[in-house]
Amino acid sequence: MDIQEILSRVDHTLLSPAATWEEIRAVLDDAIRYRAASACIPPSYVSRARAYAGGGLTICTVVGFPNGSSTTAVKVFETADAVKNGAGEIDMVVNLGWVKDGLWDEVLAEIRAVKAACGGHILKVIIETCLLTGDEKIKLCQLVSLSGADFIKTSTGFSAHGATPEDVALLRAHVSPDVGVKAAGGISSLEDAASYLALGASRLGTSRVIKLVKDLRPDLP
Amino acid sequence: MDIQEILSRVDHTLLSPAATWEEIRAVLDDAIRYRAASACIPPSYVSRARAYAGGGLTICTVVGFPNGSSTTAVKVFETADAVKNGAGEIDMVVNLGWVKDGLWDEVLAEIRAVKAACGGHILKVIIETCLLTGDEKIKLCQLVSLSGADFIKTSTGFSAHGATPEDVALLRAHVSPDVGVKAAGGISSLEDAASYLALGASRLGTSRVIKLVKDLRPDLP
Repeated sequence: MDIQEILSRVDHTLLSPAATWEEIRAVLDDAIRYRAASACIPPSYVSRARAYAGGGLTICTVVGFPNGSSTTAVKVFETADAVKNGAGEIDMVVNLGWVKDGLWDEVLAEIRAVKAACGGHILKVIIETCLLTGDEKIKLCQLVSLSGADFIKTSTGFSAHGATPEDVALLRAHVSPDVGVKAAGGISSLEDAASYLALGASRLGTSRVIKLVKDLRPDLP
Repeated sequence: MDIQEILSRVDHTLLSPAATWEEIRAVLDDAIRYRAASACIPPSYVSRARAYAGGGLTICTVVGFPNGSSTTAVKVFETADAVKNGAGEIDMVVNLGWVKDGLWDEVLAEIRAVKAACGGHILKVIIETCLLTGDEKIKLCQLVSLSGADFIKTSTGFSAHGATPEDVALLRAHVSPDVGVKAAGGISSLEDAASYLALGASRLGTSRVIKLVKDLRPDLP
């Protein structure tokens, strides 16, 4: 697969709790240079990143992250705050306790409320596959498809493990054709990246792909 | 040290992302039965826990947790939402990126804003000691002492490691006498618990102490 095609699917990501502005700025610079889909950074850096990057980069940030156990009111406020600060994409975490309790109406209502707060911007719904049964994953594919959200996303990168090929194929098979799949967490090679795209992912959450391209292809971009 | 004295210092804690209501209810029941200082649970369960437990238990919850990288506006909203839902104590995480960048005015202003949103309820400030240098820990002791917050707390339990005896002694030595120290993360025995209290902690964040007391002292309470 063409490296430029892979790069155009990457949300270049740095969500470490102790990330400094210099580290965030390097992520923004690389996301611009390699024409990544977005830079995915913590909420408290969105405003500064927007001012630094100007219009040439989509800023993605996270809501209810990584535990998913904020109230719906807080997730909605957090989303509106992020959009106001300049975020163009929102990656939210579902309430995993509600998933385990089968409170599907509440899970769906929360995703819809957050989508409404996005004001037309892209919403990705993180379901944290490593904590779920197969039935729970399939049910969440159905809910995300009903909700109006734009993507389903495998993982936060802060739990037991990230995306697997099996999970990406499962999500692709069970969400609506108009819902994208984002594979995230542990993508550590260009081969991984290409194989997730071949399995039906259309977005990749990773910090490593751009680092690898820098090392392997110093001629780019 | 007397077991009842230890139990009275425990924030009996369950913050796992996928915790079900049945698991939360068991924590509430045990916190009441063993007269813990509080039950510390995720924000989305506070309202239901308040209704279930009535007035006989303090509900503690978390803000900006565990990464600390929400905006100040979101942490303030989240705090007011938690208090409205019935939380009597708030454990917030500082912005660790700002700490690493030495943005001390911003760190202090954020703690003060969250304290104001607590409406007189107790605020504990989690500094995530395992990510900090000695100088950063000491600086945060000074800021927390200036801020009006009630406790400084070592750890979220979601990072590299939790409290250490050295850190508890360091925090106790550097915060004002009127600021309490909460040791959290990895407290796995009654001896640990007693030794943290002897070092100057006045609150313990743990799920294991009550489990141990159940096993070791079935005669209690």
